[in-house]
Amino acid sequence: MFAFAREAPVGEIEQFALRLGRHFVQDFEPITRARVHIESAQWERIEVDGAPHPHSFRQVGTELRTATVVCDAPGEWVVSGLENLIVLKTSGSAFAGYIEDKYTTLEPTEERILSTAVTARWRHAGTDRDWGASFDAARTVMLERFAAIHSLSLQQTLYEMAKGAIEQDQGIVELRLSMPNRHHFVVDLEPFGMENPNEIFRVEDRPYGLIEAQILAESAPPAGPAWDPYPLL
Amino acid sequence: MFAFAREAPVGEIEQFALRLGRHFVQDFEPITRARVHIESAQWERIEVDGAPHPHSFRQVGTELRTATVVCDAPGEWVVSGLENLIVLKTSGSAFAGYIEDKYTTLEPTEERILSTAVTARWRHAGTDRDWGASFDAARTVMLERFAAIHSLSLQQTLYEMAKGAIEQDQGIVELRLSMPNRHHFVVDLEPFGMENPNEIFRVEDRPYGLIEAQILAESAPPAGPAWDPYPLL
Amino acid sequence: MFAFAREAPVGEIEQFALRLGRHFVQDFEPITRARVHIESAQWERIEVDGAPHPHSFRQVGTELRTATVVCDAPGEWVVSGLENLIVLKTSGSAFAGYIEDKYTTLEPTEERILSTAVTARWRHAGTDRDWGASFDAARTVMLERFAAIHSLSLQQTLYEMAKGAIEQDQGIVELRLSMPNRHHFVVDLEPFGMENPNEIFRVEDRPYGLIEAQILAESAPPAGPAWDPYPLL
Amino acid sequence: MFAFAREAPVGEIEQFALRLGRHFVQDFEPITRARVHIESAQWERIEVDGAPHPHSFRQVGTELRTATVVCDAPGEWVVSGLENLIVLKTSGSAFAGYIEDKYTTLEPTEERILSTAVTARWRHAGTDRDWGASFDAARTVMLERFAAIHSLSLQQTLYEMAKGAIEQDQGIVELRLSMPNRHHFVVDLEPFGMENPNEIFRVEDRPYGLIEAQILAESAPPAGPAWDPYPLL
Repeated sequence: MFAFAREAPVGEIEQFALRLGRHFVQDFEPITRARVHIESAQWERIEVDGAPHPHSFRQVGTELRTATVVCDAPGEWVVSGLENLIVLKTSGSAFAGYIEDKYTTLEPTEERILSTAVTARWRHAGTDRDWGASFDAARTVMLERFAAIHSLSLQQTLYEMAKGAIEQDQGIVELRLSMPNRHHFVVDLEPFGMENPNEIFRVEDRPYGLIEAQILAESAPPAGPAWDPYPLL
Repeated sequence: MFAFAREAPVGEIEQFALRLGRHFVQDFEPITRARVHIESAQWERIEVDGAPHPHSFRQVGTELRTATVVCDAPGEWVVSGLENLIVLKTSGSAFAGYIEDKYTTLEPTEERILSTAVTARWRHAGTDRDWGASFDAARTVMLERFAAIHSLSLQQTLYEMAKGAIEQDQGIVELRLSMPNRHHFVVDLEPFGMENPNEIFRVEDRPYGLIEAQILAESAPPAGPAWDPYPLL
Repeated sequence: MFAFAREAPVGEIEQFALRLGRHFVQDFEPITRARVHIESAQWERIEVDGAPHPHSFRQVGTELRTATVVCDAPGEWVVSGLENLIVLKTSGSAFAGYIEDKYTTLEPTEERILSTAVTARWRHAGTDRDWGASFDAARTVMLERFAAIHSLSLQQTLYEMAKGAIEQDQGIVELRLSMPNRHHFVVDLEPFGMENPNEIFRVEDRPYGLIEAQILAESAPPAGPAWDPYPLL
Repeated sequence: MFAFAREAPVGEIEQFALRLGRHFVQDFEPITRARVHIESAQWERIEVDGAPHPHSFRQVGTELRTATVVCDAPGEWVVSGLENLIVLKTSGSAFAGYIEDKYTTLEPTEERILSTAVTARWRHAGTDRDWGASFDAARTVMLERFAAIHSLSLQQTLYEMAKGAIEQDQGIVELRLSMPNRHHFVVDLEPFGMENPNEIFRVEDRPYGLIEAQILAESAPPAGPAWDPYPLL
């Protein structure tokens, strides 16, 4: 299927379904009918400084805005956040220079697809803010950093996104981010006598790396029970 | 929780979480700490003739575009579609005059919330079209009809959406739509001494009605194997 | 629906579906056909000191038993079934001799892991049976055939399972099965200087083959509207 | 990871998690702490003619057995657990005497259905045990307590289940449980002129109570980083 996709422009999903269905019916004698069903997700370009970015995208999906509040006798804590913000870069992402041992199979690369589903939460210093404006600004700067930074690793990208959120808003004193690496591997088309100049990728669901970190502003007050897990498990 | 929500403006989710958390800690002696976590989905106004509609919304979610093609010896069929287009009207929806028997408990209403997740598929007369433009036009007219029509029932709304798609594109000869009724019931706040002028609703997940229909253009050619189910079950 | 359920013993799901379908067709003039679909989860008694407890239960997984009934003027049809019965063979499964073309990458094998999640539905000749015993017998023979047959392909295994169900019960006249191939590939450990005698496997979620078929007993009467899809899409 | 798995017998999931965690901490200078989390599904042999088949299996539902291991310089921690153990009592469950305020609508009851999906994790004092036997004993006693105890609340039931696990195994020093209340409400059939002696129930998905607690043995040593959340969010 990967080699077949590479042989001609994919085009609209109806066109590609027709090309694939005709292949089965015309090229194999025992096949008299083929049904092809394709589903395609929606992607939009990320805006950076008001302009659509050339190779960074956001999936239009079930993104959630979240808020977690802890009230107790000595104080109150507010944690804002978002879940399932799916993003992808078709260029501007590398991964090399990591520690290798005898179990390492991953090849270093200077050019790959980078994709993740961002879950982020950030702790505020206070409990009285313009929550809507604060949320929009944090979300925007994280998207812009993801799009604009040349990624050396998902770890570095995560850190730069968190740093961006802290730098643009002194009311944010801590971020925690969780970003699964949604691996896209270049398919080897040499067995089919084709080159594959980063055009046809295979999504591999398992195993994957889950990149997570906690980033504290230098001025951050103690977190108290703000992060006590709920659900516990 | 419903009465609590009614007592004051809900506001941003951080504000509402603080109000709820403080209520537990301040009003109940055994409670020393409360954690409140809220998730909110994103909704956008549906555009009708280029302008945002006053009470019709689309959830920004995991909508998919689909294509199903059947190729066999005598012919080819193309079915385009979409899945999981979540829409909601906060006004302009009634349900009354239905058949009642001794098991009926639903009360007739002239004003309710109407919400559904649209799955739609439409069969084309031919196999050579501008698939992208055709998809956009069909999706737009179905959204506009959902928004603009005063709904007398989800059944009538479904029919008008399908009719709209057929009327604006002679290349579409049949539609099938599946629309679960996502019930929003007005909460009775009289036990709390409050009125509830269509402000606080309870979403009831089960049981629900699944509204489905097949709409054929008068000129529709035979469907052949276009709809043979896949998966079978 | 709650009051309707209270009026008479619920019994097996096929019986309850027939009672509900007949109610709609017989008691409402505009209704000419009713389809009722029921899914039931499995529960087992919790054992306490080795004895089954009188009123405490544990749910047995995600396998569902299903019943679909169609009632209309000329007749009635009953389709029983199950969903999400997950099975796996660690041996006794081969796949070779398939048609190859220039796009084929799969290697033939005489020994592999075979795994699938069975969805099965079967049509009965009549509407008056011991539904519980019939269900148990059909499920048992399909499991036994999956286990005992040396698999040459998932397609052949599917066919043998369906044939087994028809052979042991003349009241079953048609089966439809849908079985996704949950691929387990032997990991190549040669780069690590190790052999891998079918011990370490990688599960690959995408792409996968969805194997489906319809098997008719020779004596099968016409299916009428028994399989009309619901949901439509 | 595949080559690593091949090098030695995998054994119980706690053992394999320890082997993997130690590898990271001992063999890589920059790594000072490793957390390994493993989930394993349950499989049973398919019976053929009353005897378990040598190489054919059926997956037993969605219940998972879990193991979480933390290895760092000063020590190692092992947390065993299970997820999605769904249980239900049709009798022997009450809920009354709770704090009421003006927002309370729930009626006290001496007889109700109680149902939940248990997620449980328990911390061991040591790292060298018969993990399989320990898991089976903890799971059995929690199921037995759920079944046998007359429930006064889901909170009390949760506590008794945890207490049972600690009492029967001195190697378990802490449990955390998370149990959502799957509400089953008696349907009021008086509008239909019927009594409903706890026969017909309505399952209400939202809102629901999520009951969680942490239970420590008196002798429990400090938890160190055993419970540091992963995923973080």
